[in-house]
Amino acid sequence: MNIREYPEPLEIIAEQFRRLPGVGKKSAMRMAFGLVDMTQDEVNELASELIDARSKLRNCRICGNLCEGETCDICADESRDSDVVCVVEDVRSLLAMERIDSFKGRYHVLGGTISPLDGRGPEDINITSLVERVGNGKIKELIIATNPTVEGESTASYIAKLFRPLGVKVTRIGYGIPVGGDLDYADELTLSRAMEGRKEI
Amino acid sequence: MNIREYPEPLEIIAEQFRRLPGVGKKSAMRMAFGLVDMTQDEVNELASELIDARSKLRNCRICGNLCEGETCDICADESRDSDVVCVVEDVRSLLAMERIDSFKGRYHVLGGTISPLDGRGPEDINITSLVERVGNGKIKELIIATNPTVEGESTASYIAKLFRPLGVKVTRIGYGIPVGGDLDYADELTLSRAMEGRKEI
Repeated sequence: MNIREYPEPLEIIAEQFRRLPGVGKKSAMRMAFGLVDMTQDEVNELASELIDARSKLRNCRICGNLCEGETCDICADESRDSDVVCVVEDVRSLLAMERIDSFKGRYHVLGGTISPLDGRGPEDINITSLVERVGNGKIKELIIATNPTVEGESTASYIAKLFRPLGVKVTRIGYGIPVGGDLDYADELTLSRAMEGRKEI
Repeated sequence: MNIREYPEPLEIIAEQFRRLPGVGKKSAMRMAFGLVDMTQDEVNELASELIDARSKLRNCRICGNLCEGETCDICADESRDSDVVCVVEDVRSLLAMERIDSFKGRYHVLGGTISPLDGRGPEDINITSLVERVGNGKIKELIIATNPTVEGESTASYIAKLFRPLGVKVTRIGYGIPVGGDLDYADELTLSRAMEGRKEI
């Protein structure tokens, strides 16, 4: 009888890695072999670093950005414009926006999209906190920068419909983002054009 | 001031993932974001599964294969031929060999290669245990199946020189054009090795 299967603990390790985004079957197994090549002490250290670092991160209570304290550096920065809020799906999109170095407003991180097909409604993303922020009266414009996917678009429409009646200008970035793409992979020029070419929705 | 950096704990998580083979900067960060999207409980569970599974795996005391007990299933399998031992660099190579379903001998896992340039000598791989196995007198042939790289080759020569004087037949797996491959795409070294390794039909 030839051995056709990996030892079970190795499969378990690979399974854990597969829970992470972008990790397929083959790379999970390669990573599992790498983990087994480490000593038990090294694995313990790696695992406890993950636990420890994760526990230090929380979401900014104002905008939802990742941070270590109560509020993030952007919300705490008095020099930034409080009138304009850029609404993004996730922290990766926020950081992509920050890299264009021209947007000086604030952000709101939705933490996902509305996707009825996947059973995700408005209550599953950070919309209530956005309603509160707008309710405080300072925000004049919401720039919707959700990804140009079906879910991103319907989330954008939902937000537009919700806030337009409240007298808030709602715009959508548009120019230059390849349809079906991901903000995180867009180059800086494309992103700046998208900001400049935003349109009211 | 725009935010250009990831929060430090996020960087720490990505750094830990980068310790694993095949994980680059971008994929490590994608995985880190994925980990942060999990709840603390989920992260704790993932981490403890890694620790637990790793602790269950050890190397077979005879051949070096990964296993859960003292000896691996292959070494424990009395039906397999003890005369022939296939020497491989790592467990992945062993499993690749097992998949061909025709080799019924035993294995010896070196756990690496000899590479003087990287400061790895014969004492850094499992050669002593191979000497012991050969010393027990049953082994008639060692099939060296290290990878066809510079390090794999010099490891193969070293083993051949060491065991030939002991009256053991030492063979090297054949080089040539991969089945289904195209001559046009084969490099010159592979082609000349394929010529050398020709057989009468």
